[in-house]
Amino acid sequence: MARKKSHHRHGTPSRPRFWGKHAVAAALDNPGRRVVHAWATRDAAELMQFPPDVPLTRAEVTDLGKLVPGDAPHQGMVIEVEPLEDIWLDDILTQAPERAVLLVLDQVTDPHNVGAILRSAAAFGAIGIVTQDRHSPPESGALAKAASGALETMPWVRTVNLARALGDIGEAGFWRIGLAGDGATELKDALGPKRVALVLGAEGPGMRPNTREHCDAIARLPITSKVESLNVSNAAAVALYAASVA
Amino acid sequence: MARKKSHHRHGTPSRPRFWGKHAVAAALDNPGRRVVHAWATRDAAELMQFPPDVPLTRAEVTDLGKLVPGDAPHQGMVIEVEPLEDIWLDDILTQAPERAVLLVLDQVTDPHNVGAILRSAAAFGAIGIVTQDRHSPPESGALAKAASGALETMPWVRTVNLARALGDIGEAGFWRIGLAGDGATELKDALGPKRVALVLGAEGPGMRPNTREHCDAIARLPITSKVESLNVSNAAAVALYAASVA
Repeated sequence: MARKKSHHRHGTPSRPRFWGKHAVAAALDNPGRRVVHAWATRDAAELMQFPPDVPLTRAEVTDLGKLVPGDAPHQGMVIEVEPLEDIWLDDILTQAPERAVLLVLDQVTDPHNVGAILRSAAAFGAIGIVTQDRHSPPESGALAKAASGALETMPWVRTVNLARALGDIGEAGFWRIGLAGDGATELKDALGPKRVALVLGAEGPGMRPNTREHCDAIARLPITSKVESLNVSNAAAVALYAASVA
Repeated sequence: MARKKSHHRHGTPSRPRFWGKHAVAAALDNPGRRVVHAWATRDAAELMQFPPDVPLTRAEVTDLGKLVPGDAPHQGMVIEVEPLEDIWLDDILTQAPERAVLLVLDQVTDPHNVGAILRSAAAFGAIGIVTQDRHSPPESGALAKAASGALETMPWVRTVNLARALGDIGEAGFWRIGLAGDGATELKDALGPKRVALVLGAEGPGMRPNTREHCDAIARLPITSKVESLNVSNAAAVALYAASVA
């Protein structure tokens, strides 16, 4: 009971709350993001220069703490927003440049990991990430914080059917490389095609069989046998880096 | 007040509690780890085969939930342990093979990040990580979970004076590469020496000036200017990977 209540107190999937300088500034800078309300300390309000069409409530640090979960480092500012509008895979694929990296996540559900992956995808110049609607986290404060602004800039396609999306991605000329510990080749040797889709599954179970079957190659990262796997956001960062220097 | 109480209920820095299959199994496998007590469901106890010298309490899932913070995914098992004994930098350096990678963290305090970094360090075969005692997280359940067993296997040196440690590391023949966004060279071009120490600072402030001054080179990861930095565990994973394929 207590958790359900606190969940609503801290925003809902349909109206998530973001906090912290990077996430708030990026949301304000995104013309596609509707900011419904803002709460800020006097100092933070001065720093952020909230646009006049955003209803702003001055608040004390302790009040802000009640708007967000537990220890959330809000840095004096909280905003309530509407989730971004859906992005279509077709739009991403038709606009893809000749050389492009796309990231596909199969059942990666942890918001911190997905946030960090958005950040790394933006850092290494990926053209977008694709997840399955039902098994990916909704927009949330924790995700936005981990994304450090990239939630606003990195195109994120949520698809109903990941296998079908992989079909479309393949038809658009992307070489689909699934990452798995039992991959026959090392990732750097699987890279080379100008358009690459990197496919990662959840830690532990990895990609689902139907996802794996829709890959052109299964590759592994060069890790020692002493460790089963990397954290999925770390694996994504390494794969994105490897693709960017290939 | 509530937080302080809950802190003690979930273990203390001097007696942290670990949970989840990977962290618990790795602790039990580590001859250097003293496990003070274990709580487990019938199924988990059967699975783990706790050694007879570990006092074991059978517990229900709901009871286990009270031994660990909030949503911690304990998977039916919790152990209370003593922190590992200190490791000396000299031991690591004198035993280092001809080709070796060492990771140095300056003020990285988030337990999830440090845990994931231990995991990546183990995955890419680093010989150890070095942190400053006062500005690094103590052993904890969250850290052990994120490390997924690597807390038990990856040598972790906590030093009082990081600058002095970097001096010793340099004298042992390690080429000390500090990572920073304003680095003059790209990391892959700074790599090459057989013994390398990768030095990472906290997100935001980065390395402290005195740490930076003790590096032989300052290098950057090839990320777009649109993103300020990577999550520190992602940056560490990329750097470890780059060093492993150099």
